[in-house]
Amino acid sequence: MTDGPPLAEAVDDTADDIATMEIRGAATIARAAADAVAAQARATDADDPEAFRSSMRAAGRRLYDTRPTAVSLPNALRYTLGRMEGDDVDTLRDAVLAAATAFTDRLDRAQRDLGRVGANRLRDGDTVMTHCHSTDALACVEAAVEQGKSISAIVKETRPRNQGHITAAELRELGVDVTLVVDSAARRYLDEADHVVVGADSIAADGGVVNKIGTSGLAVNARERGVPIMVAAQTIKLHPDTLTGHTVEIEMRDETEVIADADRADIGEITVENPAFDVTPPRYVDAIVTESGQFPPESIVTLMRELFGESADRPWEEPGTAGATPE
Amino acid sequence: MTDGPPLAEAVDDTADDIATMEIRGAATIARAAADAVAAQARATDADDPEAFRSSMRAAGRRLYDTRPTAVSLPNALRYTLGRMEGDDVDTLRDAVLAAATAFTDRLDRAQRDLGRVGANRLRDGDTVMTHCHSTDALACVEAAVEQGKSISAIVKETRPRNQGHITAAELRELGVDVTLVVDSAARRYLDEADHVVVGADSIAADGGVVNKIGTSGLAVNARERGVPIMVAAQTIKLHPDTLTGHTVEIEMRDETEVIADADRADIGEITVENPAFDVTPPRYVDAIVTESGQFPPESIVTLMRELFGESADRPWEEPGTAGATPE
Amino acid sequence: MTDGPPLAEAVDDTADDIATMEIRGAATIARAAADAVAAQARATDADDPEAFRSSMRAAGRRLYDTRPTAVSLPNALRYTLGRMEGDDVDTLRDAVLAAATAFTDRLDRAQRDLGRVGANRLRDGDTVMTHCHSTDALACVEAAVEQGKSISAIVKETRPRNQGHITAAELRELGVDVTLVVDSAARRYLDEADHVVVGADSIAADGGVVNKIGTSGLAVNARERGVPIMVAAQTIKLHPDTLTGHTVEIEMRDETEVIADADRADIGEITVENPAFDVTPPRYVDAIVTESGQFPPESIVTLMRELFGESADRPWEEPGTAGATPE
Amino acid sequence: MTDGPPLAEAVDDTADDIATMEIRGAATIARAAADAVAAQARATDADDPEAFRSSMRAAGRRLYDTRPTAVSLPNALRYTLGRMEGDDVDTLRDAVLAAATAFTDRLDRAQRDLGRVGANRLRDGDTVMTHCHSTDALACVEAAVEQGKSISAIVKETRPRNQGHITAAELRELGVDVTLVVDSAARRYLDEADHVVVGADSIAADGGVVNKIGTSGLAVNARERGVPIMVAAQTIKLHPDTLTGHTVEIEMRDETEVIADADRADIGEITVENPAFDVTPPRYVDAIVTESGQFPPESIVTLMRELFGESADRPWEEPGTAGATPE
Amino acid sequence: MTDGPPLAEAVDDTADDIATMEIRGAATIARAAADAVAAQARATDADDPEAFRSSMRAAGRRLYDTRPTAVSLPNALRYTLGRMEGDDVDTLRDAVLAAATAFTDRLDRAQRDLGRVGANRLRDGDTVMTHCHSTDALACVEAAVEQGKSISAIVKETRPRNQGHITAAELRELGVDVTLVVDSAARRYLDEADHVVVGADSIAADGGVVNKIGTSGLAVNARERGVPIMVAAQTIKLHPDTLTGHTVEIEMRDETEVIADADRADIGEITVENPAFDVTPPRYVDAIVTESGQFPPESIVTLMRELFGESADRPWEEPGTAGATPE
Amino acid sequence: MTDGPPLAEAVDDTADDIATMEIRGAATIARAAADAVAAQARATDADDPEAFRSSMRAAGRRLYDTRPTAVSLPNALRYTLGRMEGDDVDTLRDAVLAAATAFTDRLDRAQRDLGRVGANRLRDGDTVMTHCHSTDALACVEAAVEQGKSISAIVKETRPRNQGHITAAELRELGVDVTLVVDSAARRYLDEADHVVVGADSIAADGGVVNKIGTSGLAVNARERGVPIMVAAQTIKLHPDTLTGHTVEIEMRDETEVIADADRADIGEITVENPAFDVTPPRYVDAIVTESGQFPPESIVTLMRELFGESADRPWEEPGTAGATPE
Repeated sequence: MTDGPPLAEAVDDTADDIATMEIRGAATIARAAADAVAAQARATDADDPEAFRSSMRAAGRRLYDTRPTAVSLPNALRYTLGRMEGDDVDTLRDAVLAAATAFTDRLDRAQRDLGRVGANRLRDGDTVMTHCHSTDALACVEAAVEQGKSISAIVKETRPRNQGHITAAELRELGVDVTLVVDSAARRYLDEADHVVVGADSIAADGGVVNKIGTSGLAVNARERGVPIMVAAQTIKLHPDTLTGHTVEIEMRDETEVIADADRADIGEITVENPAFDVTPPRYVDAIVTESGQFPPESIVTLMRELFGESADRPWEEPGTAGATPE
Repeated sequence: MTDGPPLAEAVDDTADDIATMEIRGAATIARAAADAVAAQARATDADDPEAFRSSMRAAGRRLYDTRPTAVSLPNALRYTLGRMEGDDVDTLRDAVLAAATAFTDRLDRAQRDLGRVGANRLRDGDTVMTHCHSTDALACVEAAVEQGKSISAIVKETRPRNQGHITAAELRELGVDVTLVVDSAARRYLDEADHVVVGADSIAADGGVVNKIGTSGLAVNARERGVPIMVAAQTIKLHPDTLTGHTVEIEMRDETEVIADADRADIGEITVENPAFDVTPPRYVDAIVTESGQFPPESIVTLMRELFGESADRPWEEPGTAGATPE
Repeated sequence: MTDGPPLAEAVDDTADDIATMEIRGAATIARAAADAVAAQARATDADDPEAFRSSMRAAGRRLYDTRPTAVSLPNALRYTLGRMEGDDVDTLRDAVLAAATAFTDRLDRAQRDLGRVGANRLRDGDTVMTHCHSTDALACVEAAVEQGKSISAIVKETRPRNQGHITAAELRELGVDVTLVVDSAARRYLDEADHVVVGADSIAADGGVVNKIGTSGLAVNARERGVPIMVAAQTIKLHPDTLTGHTVEIEMRDETEVIADADRADIGEITVENPAFDVTPPRYVDAIVTESGQFPPESIVTLMRELFGESADRPWEEPGTAGATPE
Repeated sequence: MTDGPPLAEAVDDTADDIATMEIRGAATIARAAADAVAAQARATDADDPEAFRSSMRAAGRRLYDTRPTAVSLPNALRYTLGRMEGDDVDTLRDAVLAAATAFTDRLDRAQRDLGRVGANRLRDGDTVMTHCHSTDALACVEAAVEQGKSISAIVKETRPRNQGHITAAELRELGVDVTLVVDSAARRYLDEADHVVVGADSIAADGGVVNKIGTSGLAVNARERGVPIMVAAQTIKLHPDTLTGHTVEIEMRDETEVIADADRADIGEITVENPAFDVTPPRYVDAIVTESGQFPPESIVTLMRELFGESADRPWEEPGTAGATPE
Repeated sequence: MTDGPPLAEAVDDTADDIATMEIRGAATIARAAADAVAAQARATDADDPEAFRSSMRAAGRRLYDTRPTAVSLPNALRYTLGRMEGDDVDTLRDAVLAAATAFTDRLDRAQRDLGRVGANRLRDGDTVMTHCHSTDALACVEAAVEQGKSISAIVKETRPRNQGHITAAELRELGVDVTLVVDSAARRYLDEADHVVVGADSIAADGGVVNKIGTSGLAVNARERGVPIMVAAQTIKLHPDTLTGHTVEIEMRDETEVIADADRADIGEITVENPAFDVTPPRYVDAIVTESGQFPPESIVTLMRELFGESADRPWEEPGTAGATPE
Repeated sequence: MTDGPPLAEAVDDTADDIATMEIRGAATIARAAADAVAAQARATDADDPEAFRSSMRAAGRRLYDTRPTAVSLPNALRYTLGRMEGDDVDTLRDAVLAAATAFTDRLDRAQRDLGRVGANRLRDGDTVMTHCHSTDALACVEAAVEQGKSISAIVKETRPRNQGHITAAELRELGVDVTLVVDSAARRYLDEADHVVVGADSIAADGGVVNKIGTSGLAVNARERGVPIMVAAQTIKLHPDTLTGHTVEIEMRDETEVIADADRADIGEITVENPAFDVTPPRYVDAIVTESGQFPPESIVTLMRELFGESADRPWEEPGTAGATPE
């Protein structure tokens, strides 16, 4: 860390908490980053506009560097710093504060708004098939139930961590009829499903949906069976690095999630691979449901650029540095 | 109706005429609504900007409530009221009047402009296949003929109401060689067609095209036979509710359109279903042709938002009311 | 007619009746031809085997020449004459008589046996979609009902001649719940169908199914919607000329079936085309159900050769004449 | 049991052992049935051919009735009794004994012969993906290893019973490099696979492959990824009832295989469904590998009829009884 | 060569000529082998049937060993030796001689018969697209022209050896209108083609068609464009080793066919690969046209077994040796 | 040319040089046009805003008319003249100059920026397949190599002009392992490719990619084999006329590129067709990589409108003339 402009204490604290994962979860990180940017704007008493901008960029870099591969963190920075426009310090500060407020207001409402959009796609009496556990996806079913619709669900258990059990329990809480099946049974039960509804870990500029391993295989089968696929994802899940072609690194998790130690010994010397996610091509997704409405996956890049800026925008970088252009 | 701001007489009259279907047809309703909004703007002599805005919103609600499921009516309101920006009453009024003029000017030219765009996709000597009767689709053929291109047509009769007969007669008027076939013969004659050209009842944010029953089955076969599918639709057909995930209600029409009384008696106790429309998924459509140019169906949502506002925009609602967010 | 071996009176009579269409319908023609062949065998008192064979071939040619494009007629001849093997006249005669009996016995049972095979593919509670009117297809539903299964039906009206009305009435007679729709509504209702069940006018050696116009478009959509397609057809429908690559001539019917005279006058100078049949490629058919069991369409050629002989077999031709090889 | 012809003691014993599942497994049952038929032939000292045939049919019925839904049992009976031809008792007896010997000889060699056929489809350095545990599928890999080819494997764990663990261990024994993945990871790893190799529970006349739940979803994804799918199955797996259109009943297994009691309590009142098998349509299978060579799935019906007789053949039924025709 | 039964001089001579490629070409080799088998049968004056059989097998082995990877050679041996049935030497000899005559008679007529079958698939006015140069494919066009049909052709040049030039010249000779295009232009011109017509180097039991490199890519595009694909191939092209799963080795040819020496030097150190053939999966082929009629590719295995025997049949092997079972 | 406002000398010179093809190549033309527009802005000393605008439009028309079918020329004019906004001459001039600078700055960086975006889609160890020669496509590989990734390439020779040889040589220069194959071998080698990477001649508003003949056939096969297709194209390749539905005229080149004179004589009287380009539908393209980031082809129309204006915009036309609306 070079000694650039002084940072507000809130910026440092937030950065530390993100780095140590005290602050975690896409929405929580995004909100904290927006709040820290606002704190920095309030704390910065610059003499001239460029000094103010430089101070804000410094805060942005401090925050960004804590988890450069996160998705929602750079989105929060791009949204708030990207709207910093004006000719004097007060105007700039107001712009940042307004953007931070708009961003956090949006976050407050996002899941509920998204849920209502998704619910509108469901009809009374429909059966949804779910994969893994996604609060965004569940928000769609919840809103549908609130709209008075009767919804049933076929829940895939989602090996290796069986998040389907959580989904099943929460759907039961909502009064939804639940049938639990192993992942391999999906194609058979697609004939009884009216929609596949899943969440997303992140969404790429080329329309690819990164989500829990097994989503892409399910989507291919859903298309083959004629069942539409809805992805529920708040806009903070739009992956900013993918605008410049970056692919999303897939986390490989520990083999102990897949195989018990005893079985391991029985089988002998084999490799166990345990990828956490896969990528569903846009041609197998019918709609991405966000708090800004629904979109075909092929047009999500437009929303991404509208909310978070041009592909080359990294508003925390000093102009002219390498990072400001695609890499 | 609460007693809110006073409404211009033209607003009340227009609302009544829409409600009683004196005013009908997508373009006619849209124009009348824009004119009524302009009348209200001219008639409102508010003391302050908020009072003006409130008066305009009241007019919007009055109009909107007459046929909340129409497509072009809310589009007209969103276009005109959504451009009401400014800090004083005069600026607001000018903005509304300018938007109303722009909207009606656009309507005046829309079908002809659209026709020229569609015509540009056709080559001299091409054969088009049509379904139902659409003046937007016919405008494409007419413009092609005006461009000096020789066009032939295979016209599906389009049961149950045989609108294909009207299409056939109008194409003959244009000097087009016409072959009329039953709907079931479409796949056989696709081998002789260079394009499928159809209109739209409405177009959804997810790229789905709502059109006369039979369009989706035709589109699936056209793709299988390698024939491109062009949908001709003015932008007033973009369905605003679908931005928030709403599906389009399909009208079920009377069984007498399908079966004569005598036949009915012979067959015995059966159900006759007569849906007026179906939905063609975007993956079976090659281009949507509008007065703003052509678009892949997957990007029509962007045009929709550009013309008629964000998904959550209902500029006739008072801020803070439930209706202002997606439902 | 050259003066070859004398023909039994029954052969001449049958030939005349087929030629004048006194005898019509695939099964009726087939039975009459087999009976005539048997009559000729009984009537022929030849001195040597070759004279007997020549006499039988003469009867075959007499019958074949009445309607060379029929499907079941040459099948009857190939079945009965193709099994004429032996070293003396009595053995030859017995072989022909046995073949004729086997053939007509098979015909007697064919539709009922076929119906039971098709019924076995249906489950209790299934909904079938039908196109046109086929007694073979109906036999499958009837057998299913006899097996105690509850079956519902979505019946396409099948323009231009509305044979769907007959199908609807007959299904009602069986106690089946019937929903009648226009042909264009098929794709929408495929989501509620468990099977498409159709008959066949004839079946080609390459697995193509010739059936009422509209079948192929329905099959393409059924595959796209994930609904299996079953074709019910007795083996007399297997088209012998297609073994040697011949395509099936599609009958073009009168335009008055499509358009009333009054409408015709209104529309102006257009062409009306009214093909009676189309060809569904084997890749869109899941099973062909016959009285010999079910077959994938790609293996029907094997059944065809087993029942009716090698591609080059025309057992009514004198050996060495041109007609005995593929043409 | 009516008192028909006396049964050999071996027939009664075998029937009892099949009924009590002392004798189990497709191959073991088939062999026992063939041996019992041979025993009956040896023990029957009939006066005339018809008495001999009747005695053999009685033995067939006794055996068949023990497990009428098994696959290999009726195949053994059809193979051995179906070849009972001749004009005197000795010839008939010899025919049955020869058929029984041919059948059991075939069984002895089947898996090894099949393995060599499957191995020939694999190239040195190939990677196979497996689902569940199939000794027929493993025989292909084993034969390939014996041919000196280096083979790697990606093994799906195959929930709920994790038979993939057995497959993994056995492949390790053969010296194959094994990577174990959860079922949902299949699509991701298909990019590294050269073949999908699975076994079959049974194979239907329409080319459908009944195998462990998850096979059909894997096959759809393998086709989408361009990976060929090979099914390894001895001919005793060809399902005789499907010739007459019967569908294969899918066993529903206990929910305790899917969910532990503790989890069950946590989730609340849900349904757990646990089907053991699914059906893969022939269009997603590239080859069925048997001891008689490889076949496209669409032509397996021909092999089925060649080995085990016409669809209507139930050679253990008395002629003229209902069971002798399709039902 | 062990000293087994004495071989006829014609056998030794033919074997030598095949080995030295004096005798070459699928049909020429097949005929020579059948003639040599007949010569051996005539020359063998065995005491007992087994000695005769052994002598014939020895001749078979001598011939087979000259080019074990050829396609038509083992087919000739399997056809002739596989029909050697009987209880005494004279009957056996007669059977072999009859089989040899039948086989060579068939060869004499095969291309012409095949051509007529293929021609029957073409209609007057059709345009065919060709790839490479195949006399079987040309025979179809020639027969169509003889039938009085007007045929046009789009001829792919077929790099690297431009056999399309030969095809173009021969089609011109037949009076066919020819358009020559580079291979890459195929998809564009498929819109003007009614059929793709190609030959085959060999055809596999799983329905795969081995033909000149580029065939499979053309077939995939033809299916995508809705153009049917016809493969013209005499039955001697059916590859016997593929019955037991063997894959067809693809010849890699010299790089000088692809790139001139001068260009080579300019480009620098690169690899040039020049495979002669590729494999088209059966799902992209509509019909295989042979002298025995047309077949869907999925059923060609049945014809293969009918003509040339069971997968395990190698009638030149001594019973009980390893070679007699699949390897 | 009417005598409208005086043109700067640079405008006339540039127009002449474009007309005579002294200036050629998409990027060179675009830059020259932007510079000429800037020169005109500097040279115009108008009295009032409208006079300035009129002068700029005159320069635009002069330039546009030199090559109305070019792609990059109207894009340069639309970008620079389309941003001419303001209420006085100085503001207008500044706006034009700023736009011209922004446009040429963008051009300077475009290929390098694009290359980095494309490179980000490639992983270390990947193999790319190329068609024809495209500096944009090569820029992606070059950037990947600079990122330290090891890349291999399969290069199609790209008949008739063998531009693949240039691509092969340039990739070798970058240290890439190159395998050269004939175009027909593409499908076979797709199994070894991780990406298809091609350039574009132009890109249409409906997402169609116009590129060297053979691209579309390659793309269809790449999708069938599961290999993603990346198109590398700077935004000046976006074809402005296609916004209004115009199709792109495909250049037909001389037959001597396809066939040597000697071969021509041998073949006889045939037609040789040599189209330079074909159109790949958007559904076969995974991503279009530009200097503004990557886009699904279906959303490129949005970028096109953002950069170069509404479909109807032709900012060089006088308002109210026919050219200002779609034609």
